[in-house]
Amino acid sequence: MPVRASAVYVAGVAMTRFGRQPERSVKALVQEAVDGALRDAACDRQAPGLAFFANCTQAAFEGQTAVAGQIAVRAAGLPRVPVVNVENACASGTTAFHLACTAVRAGACDIALAVGAERMTAADKARVFALLEGGWDIDETEAIAERLRRLGAGVTPPPGAADGGAKSVFMDVYAAFARYHMHIYGLTQRQLALVAVKNQTHAALNPFAQYREVMTVEQVLNGRVVAWPLTLPMCAPISDGAAAAVVCNDAALARFGRARAVRVLACVPGEGETREWAQLDRHITRRAAERAYEEAGLGPEDVSLAEVHDATVFGEILQSECLGLCPIGDGGLLAESGATRLGGRIPVNVSGGLQSRGHPIGATGLAQIFELVTQLRGEAGSRQVPGARIGIAENGGGMHGVEEAAAYVTLLGS
Amino acid sequence: MPVRASAVYVAGVAMTRFGRQPERSVKALVQEAVDGALRDAACDRQAPGLAFFANCTQAAFEGQTAVAGQIAVRAAGLPRVPVVNVENACASGTTAFHLACTAVRAGACDIALAVGAERMTAADKARVFALLEGGWDIDETEAIAERLRRLGAGVTPPPGAADGGAKSVFMDVYAAFARYHMHIYGLTQRQLALVAVKNQTHAALNPFAQYREVMTVEQVLNGRVVAWPLTLPMCAPISDGAAAAVVCNDAALARFGRARAVRVLACVPGEGETREWAQLDRHITRRAAERAYEEAGLGPEDVSLAEVHDATVFGEILQSECLGLCPIGDGGLLAESGATRLGGRIPVNVSGGLQSRGHPIGATGLAQIFELVTQLRGEAGSRQVPGARIGIAENGGGMHGVEEAAAYVTLLGS
Repeated sequence: MPVRASAVYVAGVAMTRFGRQPERSVKALVQEAVDGALRDAACDRQAPGLAFFANCTQAAFEGQTAVAGQIAVRAAGLPRVPVVNVENACASGTTAFHLACTAVRAGACDIALAVGAERMTAADKARVFALLEGGWDIDETEAIAERLRRLGAGVTPPPGAADGGAKSVFMDVYAAFARYHMHIYGLTQRQLALVAVKNQTHAALNPFAQYREVMTVEQVLNGRVVAWPLTLPMCAPISDGAAAAVVCNDAALARFGRARAVRVLACVPGEGETREWAQLDRHITRRAAERAYEEAGLGPEDVSLAEVHDATVFGEILQSECLGLCPIGDGGLLAESGATRLGGRIPVNVSGGLQSRGHPIGATGLAQIFELVTQLRGEAGSRQVPGARIGIAENGGGMHGVEEAAAYVTLLGS
Repeated sequence: MPVRASAVYVAGVAMTRFGRQPERSVKALVQEAVDGALRDAACDRQAPGLAFFANCTQAAFEGQTAVAGQIAVRAAGLPRVPVVNVENACASGTTAFHLACTAVRAGACDIALAVGAERMTAADKARVFALLEGGWDIDETEAIAERLRRLGAGVTPPPGAADGGAKSVFMDVYAAFARYHMHIYGLTQRQLALVAVKNQTHAALNPFAQYREVMTVEQVLNGRVVAWPLTLPMCAPISDGAAAAVVCNDAALARFGRARAVRVLACVPGEGETREWAQLDRHITRRAAERAYEEAGLGPEDVSLAEVHDATVFGEILQSECLGLCPIGDGGLLAESGATRLGGRIPVNVSGGLQSRGHPIGATGLAQIFELVTQLRGEAGSRQVPGARIGIAENGGGMHGVEEAAAYVTLLGS
């Protein structure tokens, strides 16, 4: 039998502002996030026993091709802690968080640090997009393109809105999946726009967010078409930023104090499966969510708020369904109902999500943890979800077959 | 209190031949190593609950810039297992192994897979060397060069052997450290050559090794000077290859059978420290080794064989001292005594080491595990260390200050 898992907590979190800050290095971003998270936990710089650093693009954009995490974490004033560099595409941040939780649970250390950072706006966009295209098997680019053509074929874009011009093929992927969802479940482009506006409204209340202006639904619909039905305001931007979390066990918590600690109820890496897109009830995050709920002894009805991976707003539609916030196929209706707004039944992406808060790849998963912890502590100010008790986060990265190559579902509880 | 650690075992290992095989992709190398390790453990493809993939150069050389581990592991016929991509420079392989052990110890899964692979010979060497130079803080290249000049200044190369022409600055680093050791402890170039010949002699018995020809000491001394006192045969080559290990707990071992399982007595990531080079007794691997011995309840006198990180033969001298196989400063004398040969008191790098077995970066740490497991099982054939009961491995990567940025010491026992 596996060891009975001991309790794991988040004792401190921090994030930098997300957005364009090309004048700052990965080192500088990491320092701010690590400083903040340690201060938030009242944790000494010598205390973390292991650190996990999530990053995807620093080698390409800053030339630090190896041990980048050691260099950044030591520059942040932590000379002692062993560091592991992890990469799982857009799920890198939660991968680092999961490893920190696992290390503490294994008794490898009492306190572990997870930090994610990305600095992407200094690079020319073509290089960023080229790098993102390594998020699936580069030997199968043709096969993937053909699969997408078939998947999206059920819905024809209106005249004048033909796509095919997305600079990031990932946007073509999201667009094809969205069109399939329109074809089968009746998702509308207007519902997608409602998600964008809702997240902008949330981001306007978040001082860390990249975009804090709120558009009208019409403005979103009239935005430049990236890949129909997705317009520019429906897609996550390129961002710079970092986020960090201090994870610990009961022994450490006895020192830190329990008042502001948040418990990790589950952090589950998704298991892959070879399946058809139509089998949405077997999506990788669906299955990971089921396992997370089971581990925590909870169900979707217990969740106070959700942070999901809306690299485009279609991601939020899909993941709302996968997390069980509504039946499969009903994500558009859920968004339209207002339930996912701050003040609604189940607020989604109160941070603004990837689309408005921003998406510095390696930092994103930890920014989700930051948001949940802040909300569960009741410290979210004007964007506070009243009485938040349980938060869920979903973070996905890369692509294999018709689903994410890496996916994590996390449940935190106050 | 941390959870009382449960027992962790290596149930299966495998490696490909190391050497020049530019016609094979990372995927192909991974498939061979994973197939072999699963077969060796009699482990079903669906069984591993987590996998850790160690690689440093695939993004640069094959263009698979993200989720490379997922793509390779799924191509090897494991569609289910969640994968984490890890990088810790030349210590990446043991980093993956440590995470696999930690995951099993935490109860996150009963069986975890660690795999490391690198395919480097297809790239032009200048690009390989450029990539390796990202192994320290690229903002401090000048400061590092100056420190090396000071460190190596105690010994002047003989006329005609002036260095400064090493294509890899890492070789300059090793050379400067070697010269310091010559200056302070009396290490000789001939002792370095003896290590090279000894490892060639070992590699000649290892069918997986890259170089299997044995030179004379004079041939080694007369080799092209890479960075004095290091000649070409004293340095690890550029290599292609992969290695893998299946790690599990008692529950899984009940299924696999215990006969060939090897127990992980300790796997310790080194903790960094800001120190002067002169304080060799506080070297990162010295301190990690002390902790590993303590965890295992063993001392250096209990060790049957050691695999150490001889990126150059000076690495073996230094690490023999750090692991306590001899007093600090006596590494050259230890090598000269014959004690580290197969048949000697404490055989070191019976595999041939990085220098002769080869050094496909991400695979190296796992090739060390392969060697120890094979020896502890008594399955090493003509290179078997008689009665091997306890093995130690040391794997280091990158550079911070005067020591490795990442370092691991592992103790395995039959």
